[in-house]
Order: sequence, then structure tokens, then C-alpha cells
Amino acid sequence: MVIVMGPDAVPADIEAIVETIGGAGGEAFVSRGVSRTIIGLVGDIAQFGTLDLRGMRGVADVMRVTAPYKLVSRDNHPERSTVRVGGVPIGPGTVTLIAGPCAVETPQQTLDAAEMAKAAGATLLRGGAYKPRTSPYAFQGLGEAGLRILADVREQTGLPVVTEVVDAHDVELVASYADMLQVGTRNAQNFALLQAVGRIGKPVMLKRGMNATIEEWLMAAEYIAQRGNLDIVLCERGIRTFETATRNTLDVSAVPVVQRLSHLPVIIDPSHSGGRRDLVLPLTRAAIAVGADGVIIDVHPRPEQALCDGPQALVDGDLPELARVVREFPPLVGKVPAGEALASA
Amino acid sequence: MVIVMGPDAVPADIEAIVETIGGAGGEAFVSRGVSRTIIGLVGDIAQFGTLDLRGMRGVADVMRVTAPYKLVSRDNHPERSTVRVGGVPIGPGTVTLIAGPCAVETPQQTLDAAEMAKAAGATLLRGGAYKPRTSPYAFQGLGEAGLRILADVREQTGLPVVTEVVDAHDVELVASYADMLQVGTRNAQNFALLQAVGRIGKPVMLKRGMNATIEEWLMAAEYIAQRGNLDIVLCERGIRTFETATRNTLDVSAVPVVQRLSHLPVIIDPSHSGGRRDLVLPLTRAAIAVGADGVIIDVHPRPEQALCDGPQALVDGDLPELARVVREFPPLVGKVPAGEALASA
Amino acid sequence: MVIVMGPDAVPADIEAIVETIGGAGGEAFVSRGVSRTIIGLVGDIAQFGTLDLRGMRGVADVMRVTAPYKLVSRDNHPERSTVRVGGVPIGPGTVTLIAGPCAVETPQQTLDAAEMAKAAGATLLRGGAYKPRTSPYAFQGLGEAGLRILADVREQTGLPVVTEVVDAHDVELVASYADMLQVGTRNAQNFALLQAVGRIGKPVMLKRGMNATIEEWLMAAEYIAQRGNLDIVLCERGIRTFETATRNTLDVSAVPVVQRLSHLPVIIDPSHSGGRRDLVLPLTRAAIAVGADGVIIDVHPRPEQALCDGPQALVDGDLPELARVVREFPPLVGKVPAGEALASA
Amino acid sequence: MVIVMGPDAVPADIEAIVETIGGAGGEAFVSRGVSRTIIGLVGDIAQFGTLDLRGMRGVADVMRVTAPYKLVSRDNHPERSTVRVGGVPIGPGTVTLIAGPCAVETPQQTLDAAEMAKAAGATLLRGGAYKPRTSPYAFQGLGEAGLRILADVREQTGLPVVTEVVDAHDVELVASYADMLQVGTRNAQNFALLQAVGRIGKPVMLKRGMNATIEEWLMAAEYIAQRGNLDIVLCERGIRTFETATRNTLDVSAVPVVQRLSHLPVIIDPSHSGGRRDLVLPLTRAAIAVGADGVIIDVHPRPEQALCDGPQALVDGDLPELARVVREFPPLVGKVPAGEALASA
Repeated sequence: MVIVMGPDAVPADIEAIVETIGGAGGEAFVSRGVSRTIIGLVGDIAQFGTLDLRGMRGVADVMRVTAPYKLVSRDNHPERSTVRVGGVPIGPGTVTLIAGPCAVETPQQTLDAAEMAKAAGATLLRGGAYKPRTSPYAFQGLGEAGLRILADVREQTGLPVVTEVVDAHDVELVASYADMLQVGTRNAQNFALLQAVGRIGKPVMLKRGMNATIEEWLMAAEYIAQRGNLDIVLCERGIRTFETATRNTLDVSAVPVVQRLSHLPVIIDPSHSGGRRDLVLPLTRAAIAVGADGVIIDVHPRPEQALCDGPQALVDGDLPELARVVREFPPLVGKVPAGEALASA
Repeated sequence: MVIVMGPDAVPADIEAIVETIGGAGGEAFVSRGVSRTIIGLVGDIAQFGTLDLRGMRGVADVMRVTAPYKLVSRDNHPERSTVRVGGVPIGPGTVTLIAGPCAVETPQQTLDAAEMAKAAGATLLRGGAYKPRTSPYAFQGLGEAGLRILADVREQTGLPVVTEVVDAHDVELVASYADMLQVGTRNAQNFALLQAVGRIGKPVMLKRGMNATIEEWLMAAEYIAQRGNLDIVLCERGIRTFETATRNTLDVSAVPVVQRLSHLPVIIDPSHSGGRRDLVLPLTRAAIAVGADGVIIDVHPRPEQALCDGPQALVDGDLPELARVVREFPPLVGKVPAGEALASA
Repeated sequence: MVIVMGPDAVPADIEAIVETIGGAGGEAFVSRGVSRTIIGLVGDIAQFGTLDLRGMRGVADVMRVTAPYKLVSRDNHPERSTVRVGGVPIGPGTVTLIAGPCAVETPQQTLDAAEMAKAAGATLLRGGAYKPRTSPYAFQGLGEAGLRILADVREQTGLPVVTEVVDAHDVELVASYADMLQVGTRNAQNFALLQAVGRIGKPVMLKRGMNATIEEWLMAAEYIAQRGNLDIVLCERGIRTFETATRNTLDVSAVPVVQRLSHLPVIIDPSHSGGRRDLVLPLTRAAIAVGADGVIIDVHPRPEQALCDGPQALVDGDLPELARVVREFPPLVGKVPAGEALASA
Repeated sequence: MVIVMGPDAVPADIEAIVETIGGAGGEAFVSRGVSRTIIGLVGDIAQFGTLDLRGMRGVADVMRVTAPYKLVSRDNHPERSTVRVGGVPIGPGTVTLIAGPCAVETPQQTLDAAEMAKAAGATLLRGGAYKPRTSPYAFQGLGEAGLRILADVREQTGLPVVTEVVDAHDVELVASYADMLQVGTRNAQNFALLQAVGRIGKPVMLKRGMNATIEEWLMAAEYIAQRGNLDIVLCERGIRTFETATRNTLDVSAVPVVQRLSHLPVIIDPSHSGGRRDLVLPLTRAAIAVGADGVIIDVHPRPEQALCDGPQALVDGDLPELARVVREFPPLVGKVPAGEALASA
């Protein structure tokens, strides 16, 4: 940590800080400048964390210089990780396509969507049984009945299942059906839920909060990791800005930034970020090109009847182009489609 | 709802929409303009809600024209509501001061802070036993032990207690100690929690999500109301913007905007929005002046030892000015301090 | 400045920096921490400003610790300034009401609006002859004819005139008619214009850019000051956020923050920030309560015929309440209305 | 336009609106709903534009349903345009690489940077002679001397020149040296400048304001077009958000959104959006993949000595990868590199 003293700080103020830091078991190095004095703190940051340094006399600013996350940081784990979901890799060497319906509605609709996903090259099936909706009057998902449908469709298609959990006390139930648990953007700081998925032995997909800084997103991952689960895949899904032409603003820069800070894989959700069907394919191309380790995409056999987010789901006619994108772009960034990686394994 | 057709829409597209709406039990009025045709939908919106109108041929845009919330709307409940917390009113006629420590740390600290609150004119005590923290390594609150301290301090001071609940499954426990439950900014779209506090017979303070639009905030309140609890107080606590000089940007305009849309009381949290002690008093003045029905403020007897948010807590020396502000400003906006209202009752 | 070294920095990297700084005439103090080394730079920052320190081997971050503005900073000018416009003070002791039409349309409309302003207690007249409009098809102002109308109305009412200038090459012309030049939010980083108003001997009102951080706003003021003009009044007028219920989000916290950083007066524009008539009075109350040194408000005798921003202008019926607010709130924050200050002078 | 009446609107309010619209030469179609009445307006929008419809009794909302821009809209010009700069195409069939130094510093540095640009496949040279800088104490560019250097380097390398103009009164001078004029993000609503470049017979690159919605950006282009210049290339360069890990947030979604709304070409600036060298190549890949018609990139022979934005400039070692990206990605989106298009022409 670095403490910047104000222009009106007196020597006694500086001494008080040096003593306080010493008392907490640290060391303070003082650099006296023309207009400001800077104090560099050395020692275990955890010891200084509870001190109200900012409230001490003469202090103008206190700046942290190390990342507040440890387990998910690349500092201590330089090699990028691969997370395996039912055998399917998500990581630095591959581009994994996860596809399926936004919400599980019926067995037939889910099976049809899974077949669409497979036709496009997907190796994992997405589908929501518990839907967090802004309106209490909107469709909230089928609950456990939806989980059973997903399990049946997994049997029929061989695709491992990714599905959302919205309440800490449903984690065990959802984990008993799913291959990967998803924590959604609205729960990105629901710490009870983060800790619960951290205690379960299943991979977790953690969406970025729509207003989360990259650091907060990594801290949410740290909550999961701290409870013992390091099988975490981060998912960028757009952040909230003043622009209204798209539902959210997809932050593609977050992918290389996070890959430099953390060893965890990062994927992109081009469906929910834009909220528009016509943007899904361009954003999928951008996602793979920028280096994302995968994409998660809504498909629907009959979107005009969808109970949730129909306007953003890809339809049958879009699948050949989706398949082409997922096949042709990865080699240009030194990756292979996860489907090919599995086939050649 | 209004459907705007694109410039390339053909008559058959318009007929298809008229038929679809008719089939869903509604009526469609067509206005043909020079470059665009507009279709006004009349009927029960719930019937159209699941139709993918935006996905129909020729449609350029679909616009909702009525608010998506009902129970909290002022349309159906023109008079503004007063919520009573342990007998203390929060509503249009009064300005209620809620004060106390950010986190409950010890019995003595909590009692001292409660005495400070009372000295400044507070009629409700705030204090957190469960703290949602960005870092898993930060102090997370004392849990039930903290609730017991709050209950003891209520006994000693007579101040009813407002405290946060962060997990749906703790709601009954927290409600057994508290007079009002607080739902924090990070849980503003934790729908399981919203529904749980909606089922309990205690008043709820609902903080605005730091990235929530006013409409989303009211929809979160609707979740609570829909489960049968209309004793909701809304709390503006700053939204996230690009400005970094303050932790968040206090949106004072939200107070008159919400008071026009909803009958629920609205208060302001000047401590958490700015995150700086030197801003608390100016923002408290602005809060009362803009018409807020109350303010909730952090005070701490020894902020340099606080385990949470010490740098923003008011200290002893600030209390006379806080008391003056809470006494002198309400009459200028046609309100009385809640303390005076109670005394004269 | 402080340089934070990355975890993989080697001693040679640190030595290279120490040498580079020494070569630029500064001194570098090295604090070696457990995981990071911090280097504090001492000397004339201007000398280091052109060095690409961030590009040097081993450097993780470079942090500035002193403000980049000097002339407008309170560090070097601790007492807050009062700017006088045609004899009317704007500064720490007073609350100045500036009012008038958004745009000058006709002599009669301008005179009527000026009389409204005066009735409400205004001591300065606002009115635009050059209007920066988002659409090229919208009314762009009367130009010099508008300036002549303003000058005539000043003669008739005795109110000094504040009016906007939008092009560097109009500055002399506008200054020949106006008592104070306004630089609008869209020109907050039009540096040619800032320098031009900096060279003219008239007070300047500098609106905050709708996306400007407080630091950028003060840097824009520094551009004016650097050319020799320190008669600058800062005007907060709302920043752009994701909220759509109001045109912009009024950032009241900016007032105490800026008053601490800079000696310049700060006023608030409650008309343009909200863009809604019903918000103007509540936001005016909040503005004075938070400590603003004045407010600037749109009034219009017949807003339904206004060529610009009619929906936000106050009308005749609003004036008594505006007058009351401007009279009753200043004493509660230790200020007097500028009108009273002039009368008693 | 559509007018939404409030729940308390009475028949007389609706009649008043119908009459007002009729009086302005339009027609109003009334749709009476259960809780709201909707009025669709048909006729020349320009006629209604100055009416204060929002201020009329009973009106809850007024919504525009057609775009406010005409000349740059794709509605009236369905085919996407190609702009030619000194013979080099920017448009739907190609991907154009524009590269060069952020600022022109010396003849040698500019020539070296131009050679770097050429080596990477650039067909246009960028370089700033007039630099808008946040600080008045930062390097402001060489002015006309810089323009002369650019002209010399064009002679030596054959690369047409793109350079920024920051003041309306410099437009003729800059146009006498440059092949394309750039309007920067800080001048995106400097309407005097937009009109001036609209009157000159040279192509214009219009950067998006860092806080501009897509609609405002297109309105800025409309200002240029309205003065007779349709040779406009739009440039996305990041918008301001709460994220601080990158200078701005590159909005790649804006490319397909704008290409659908407007016929103008759209390029991306990956250097200024991220502000970090390590992000330039990933963002360049994303830019081409999402469908951008070009990219504009900073290169510098000796960035550690750069007077402006050194930390984001690509260096010699980055050029082979940049060349590969610009060669290999365009074919995957149905485009060819502009250099190849020229060679085969």
C-alpha cells in the first residue's frame, strides 16, 4: 500500500503513521517530495486492512498496489487453467461452443434446441430451469421439472448440461442434475450463493455482474475459490452503459485483460449482451477473435413462441453460419474448436 | 403497447399483427404515416407479454406504454403511504433519521453508537450483523450474535432496529430480532430474497441496486409487494458512474421521480453513496431539501477502529450539526422531524 | 508520482528507473515490499511527464499523487474566490440566482422572461443567442440579433447578461455584448474555445462536460486560467448515466468535492440536468442545501411556444415558490441571497 | 410520433391534441386502451417538432418513431457507401489499415512510423499535428509544421494522409495538406467544426464522442452531410463506463448496429479505446471479425520517447502479427484487405 500525505501534513502526522504501521507489524518507507510526502507500506497487507489509514491526520489518499484476490490470480498460478465439464474442456487451447434454449419450456422444445446446438458444433448444452426475471409476473422457469428435462436430453444427445442456480439452498439439488452450475449476472454479488457453489464439487460458470468492474468480478470468483472450488469459468455478458441501442455493451476488452490477471478461462455470451438476434453472429466472431475460450449462445426451434428472450435466440437458418464461425475462427487465434479437440482425443 | 413498423413493412405484415393480437384477445389500431405505420394495442397486456412481437416480419420496434409494476404504482394508489417501524413513521409528513454503526462489532460500540444516534435526533437504529463484502477476506459480520446485541441495545435505548438480511433462509431469524429488514444494493435483484421478505410481516427497506434503473428498483419492490408485504421503504444510495472522486453518484433526482411514480416512502443514504465523511452532512442537507422522507447515516464512536467503512462514519463532533440539519430543514419542505411527530403524538 | 513494480521485476529494472529519474533531475526512493517494490519519485513532475515510465521493464503501474491543475487548485489558493459579474457576486458568501429563457427568441419574450427572473429574485439574466443543438434541423439561435436583444433587455431591467459562446472566433463579438460568457457542456473539451475565453477580460461560466470527471472539468478550467483569466464559475449540470427517467443525473456531490479541490465558485443548473419542469424546484432546493454558490434556471413566459427546451422551463405559477426557496434556504447554509447582499451593500 | 396519455387524461385533453396536430397540418389517430390512450401522429414530423406536446394537459409521454437523421440514414440510401481517400477505399468490400504515430514529432520519427505502417500493410498514414490534450501543460502538436512533415512523408511513401483538425478556422489550412480530416472524440458535438468540415471537399473521419449514443453520433454525421459532404467515415473509439482497467470500453456492437442504420463506413480505433499496447492486437482482431470496414492504429519507432500516448503504440516487434491479422481475418468476413484491393485494381 502507498499513503499519499496532503500538502498540509506535518512531521508529526507522518510519524504517527510510521508508528501505527510498525505497531501492526509492518514497515513504512517515507519519501519526502517537494509538495507531497509518500509513504510506502511493506508487510502483510491483511494486517493493515482494518486500520482506518484514510482517517488519520494529514492523509490525502491511500492506494492499494497489489490485487485483492489471490487464488484466482495469475501471479501465483502463471499457467492458464482448463476446466473440464463432463469431459469437455474450456481453456486456453480450445474454443467451446455452449448452446441451447434460454429457458427449458417443454421436453420437445429442449430436445429440438439441443439438436440445433449439436448441429452447430456445440459440445455443451445450456438451458435454464430457474430464471431470475426483472418482473414477478414473467415466466420464472420450471424448477426441478426443468432439471429433469435437461437430464433426459443429456441422455438423448450426450451433451453435458450447464444450468443456472439462483438460491444458495437449491445448489445441491441443481448440482445433482447439472454438469456445470451457472451463477447469473444479478447474483454476481450474492455472496451466500457464491459460497454455496464454492462448497460443491461441480464446475461453475460465473457471469460478470452487469455493473461489476473486472476486479469485483474476480473477487466474486475468489469467494467461490476460497471455499475450495477452483473449477470456475468466467463469462463476460455485457455491462450497463448509457447506450440504449443494445441491451448491454459487450466489453470484449475484458477478455484479454482478465486472461492476463487470472488463470481462469473466460467465455463470452453474445446473446444476452446485445439482446438482438442480428448481433449474435457478429459478436460471436468478435468473441473468438479477441481470444475468448468459448461462447454461450441461445438457440430456439420456435422463438416466436419462446417464454423468455425469444428475440435474441438464433434459429435454424442461422446454424450453418454459426457452425462455420466456430470452425474457421479458432485456428486464426491458435486454438481448436473443443469438438475437434474431443474427436482427436 | 405500441408497435412501430419498419419502412419496408408490407400490408400483409400489418394484417398478420392485427390477427395475432386479435387471437390473443386484444385489439389493434393501425395508424398509417408517411414513412411508418404505428399499431396501438389495446387489451390486457399480460396476454401480449409472451408474444414475440419484435420477431414478427416488418416490425421495427415495440414500446411499452404502461408501467410494468402495479402494486407499488401511484396510478392505483394515489395517496403516498406511511410505513411504521416499531411505531416510528416514515412517510410524506415526516423526515426520519435512522443512524447507527455500519456493522455491529461489540455491545459497547453498538450502545455508544446508538447513544450518538439518539443525541442527533434519530428515532431508529441501524446496524449490520450480516455484511455483504466485496472481499471474502473482509469482516463478514457477527451473525446472530450481532442480532442479539442489537436487541439488547434496543431495550436500553428504546430505538427500534433496522438490520440487513443477505440470504433468503435467514429472513425468519433476522425478523425475529429486527423491527425492519434491509435488503442491500448487491441483493436488489436477488429475487429469492425479495420473495422471502415479501412473505414476512415486517417492514422492509429496499436499497436501490447500484446499477438499477428506477423502473428496475420499483420492479424489485413489486416482487416484495406481490408476496403480500406493502410495508416497503425505498432507499437511494448512489449509482455507479464513471466519476471516481466519490464511491457512487448520489442520484437525488430519483427522490421526486419515484415519489411521483410510486406511493412508497423514499429515503437517502448519504454515507454509502459518497463513501466520505466530509460529504455526509452536505448530502444529508440535499436529501432533506429534495424531499426525501428520511436519511440513514453511519455513526461510530471510534471510526479509526471500525471493522467496516470507518472512513465514512460521522463522529461525535459532527452530531450537533447533524441534529441542527435534521431539525431545521424539514419545515422548509413542509415536513416535521419524525422525532417531533412522535413527541407531539 | 509513485511507480509500482510488477512481481517479476528484477533489481536491474529498479536500477534502470532510479537512473532514468536521476537523469531527469529527480530523486527516486525505493521501498521493497514482500511481493512488490514501490518507487516514490520526488522532484518537478513536469520533468517526468514525457518519460514513458509505464513502458519500462518491470513496471506494473504508475500513479500520479498530485493534482494536474495548479492555478485553479485550492492547494495554492486556500481561500475560496468570489467572481463578480456586472457587480453581482458569485462566491462563498452568497447564493446567486441566474434565470431567463433557454433561447432568446423575440424582444418581448426575452423581456417577459427577464421580468419573471427578477420577480423570483434573480440578479443575473441568462439567455442563449447561439444554441448548440444535437440536430442540424433544430433552431440554432438568433446569433448577433439575439445578443442585441439581450443588451436591450439588460438596459430595461438592469440585469447583467450571461450568454453562451460556441465558437472561438465569436468570443470577441459575444464579449462585446455580454457580462459573462458561458461555455456549454458539449464544448467542455473544445480547447480552442477555452483558450479564447481565457484571453478575454470577462467572467466565464464553465459547464461540466456531461461525461467529464471532476478532474477533467478542473483541467478545462485550468486551460482558461492558464491564458490569464481566473474569473471562472463552474457549473454542474448533470452527467450521463444509464438512468433514462431524467435527461442526465445531477451530481450534487460534485459541489462539496469541487469546493474542497478548487477555490472557484460552483453553481448548479437544475433545469438542464433533469430536463423536466417538475424536477426544477426540488433540485434547486437540493442545490442550495448542498452548498452551491448559485443556481441557473430556465423560465419562459409561454413554454408551449418555446423554440428550445420548453418542457423544462418554469412558468409564472412557479415563481413564488422559486422566490421562497432562494430566500429561505441560503441562511440555513450560512449564506445570503445575492440580491440581499447587493441591497445591503 | 406517438403520444401516450396519462391515466388521468380526460376526453378534452385528447381533443386538444387532435386539434393542435390538425392545426400543424398533421393527422392524429386515437387508440383508446383500458388504462391508457395512445395517439399516433401522421404527417411531416418537422411540423410537430417545435410543439411542446409533452407540456400539454394529460400527456404522459411522447415517443419519436422515426430516426432524426436523414442524409446518413440507410432508410433512404440502402446500399452501403465506399469513401475513397487519395484513391484508397474504405467501405463494405474492404478492410483498410490506417496506421502512423499518434503525434507528428519530427520528420524522421514520422517517416520511420510511416515505414512501419507500410510494412504492416497500411494504405493510409495517420498522424496528428494538432492534438487536443486534457492538460494545457501537455504537448499540443506542431501545428502547420507538422502538416508539412506529413505532406513530405506522403511524398516519400505514397501513403495518403489522415490528420485531425480541432478548430473550425483551421479547416481550410489542414485540408490543403491532408487527404482526410479527422474530427476527434472531444469535438464530436463541436457543431461549428462539424459544419466547417461539411463545407470542405475532403473526406472526413468522425470519431464517436466518448459519451455519445449511436444516435447522437449519427446526428453529428448529419451535421457534416447537411453542409454537402457525404464522404464520411465513422470511427468507434470506446465509450466511457465505470470500468477502469481500460481507458475506455470499446463498443464493438456499435459496428453492426451502425451498419444497419447508416450507409456510411465504420472503422475501429483499438489503440485509443484500450490505451494499452497489449490490447491493440486482440482488439484489432475483434474489430475485423465483427465487420469493421477498417482499423486505425498507433505505431511508433521509439515509444519510450513519444510525446503523446507512447504506452499504447505498437512497436517494430508487433508488426508481423499486425500484418498477419490484417491479411488473414478479412476473408473470413467476406472482405479483402484494402491493400490487396488496390493491387488487383
